[in-house]
Amino acid sequence: MSRRSDQRAATRAGILQVAAEEFEAHGYVGASLADIAERLGLTKGALYFHYPSKGDIARAIVANYFNSWEPLVTTAEARGNGPLEGIRWLTGEVAVAYRDDIHIRAAVRLVRDRAAIDVEMPTPFVDWIKTSRYFLEKAAEVGEIRSDLDLDRVTLISVAAWFGVQQVSQDLDSRESLQSFTESLWDLLLDGMK
Amino acid sequence: MSRRSDQRAATRAGILQVAAEEFEAHGYVGASLADIAERLGLTKGALYFHYPSKGDIARAIVANYFNSWEPLVTTAEARGNGPLEGIRWLTGEVAVAYRDDIHIRAAVRLVRDRAAIDVEMPTPFVDWIKTSRYFLEKAAEVGEIRSDLDLDRVTLISVAAWFGVQQVSQDLDSRESLQSFTESLWDLLLDGMK
Repeated sequence: MSRRSDQRAATRAGILQVAAEEFEAHGYVGASLADIAERLGLTKGALYFHYPSKGDIARAIVANYFNSWEPLVTTAEARGNGPLEGIRWLTGEVAVAYRDDIHIRAAVRLVRDRAAIDVEMPTPFVDWIKTSRYFLEKAAEVGEIRSDLDLDRVTLISVAAWFGVQQVSQDLDSRESLQSFTESLWDLLLDGMK
Repeated sequence: MSRRSDQRAATRAGILQVAAEEFEAHGYVGASLADIAERLGLTKGALYFHYPSKGDIARAIVANYFNSWEPLVTTAEARGNGPLEGIRWLTGEVAVAYRDDIHIRAAVRLVRDRAAIDVEMPTPFVDWIKTSRYFLEKAAEVGEIRSDLDLDRVTLISVAAWFGVQQVSQDLDSRESLQSFTESLWDLLLDGMK
C-alpha cells in the first residue's frame, strides 16, 4: 500500500472507533457527526470524504460486526470436543465480545435502533440461526442431543433466548453477567434437548 | 362523573388509542404529535391541554401496560392446576396481548426505545421477574421442579429468554408465532428444571 492509502485506512479506522464509542453511548439518533469530527480533529468535509453520511458509518460498523464471527465459528468447530461443547464455547466467546468490544457493542445497539436508520441494514439473527442450526444438527447426529427434536424450532428458540439474556444483562449490568448467564441458559436449554 | 369529565376521559382515551397506533408504527422519535392531533380532529393546543408533551403520552401508555397484568396474574393463580400450569398459562396470555393489543404493542416498543424518551420510565423486567419468581418458588415447594435450583438465576434466565423470543417473533412475523414459541420455550426450559 502507498503511504496515502495507509493514511486513508488509518483515518477510516479512527472514524469507526470514535463513531462506535458515540453510537454505543448515545444511539444512532443521539450520536453527532460534528462531535465525531471534532474528537478526531477532522473537518466535517474530511469526515464526509470518507463516509458520506451517518448511515454509511453505521452500515460499516454493522457490516464489520456481521463479518467478525467467522474465525470464531471455525475455531469452535476445530476444538474437537464435540458440537455441543463447540457451540457453548462459541456463545461464551460471543458473550465476552458483547461485553468488551466497543465495535460489537455499538453494532448491537445500531441493530436494535435500526428502525431509525435510513440505510439498508442486514437482517439480524439470520446468521446466528444458521450457525446454531449447524452445531445442533451435528450434536443430534453424534447423539449428544435427542434425534427427535424439531431442530429448526429448537435452534430459533435458543438463539432468541440468548438475545433476550444479552438484552437483560445489558440493562442490568452492561453485560458484566452475560458470560455466566449464557452458561446458565445452556444448562437449562440443553437439559431439555437430551 | 359529570358530562364534562366523561368527555375529558373519552378524549384522553382517544388520544392514547391514536398515539399507541402511531408509536407502534413509527417508534417514539418517528411519531408526530401533529399527526396525532390531526387524526383526532384536535388542535395541538387541545392535545397539550391533556398531555403537555409527547413524553407524557408515552409515559401514560407505558404505565397502563405495567398495570395491565395484575388481573391476569390473579387469574393464573386461581386456576388451581398448579404453579407451573399457572405460569405457562399466564405467559401464553401475555403472548396473545403482545400480538393483538395495540396499547401493549406500543408500550413494548416505547420501553425498547426508552433511551430516546426524555421522561422517567419504569424499569422493564422487574415486575415479570418478581411474578415469575413467585410461581417458580411455588412450583419448587410442591415438587413440580427440583428444589436445588438457584431460583433467582433460573427466574432471570426464563424472563430474559421469553423477552428474546418475543423480540425475534416480532421481527419474524409481527408476533404471530409468539404464543407457539412461548410453549416451545417452556417445554425446553422446564425440562431443565425437573
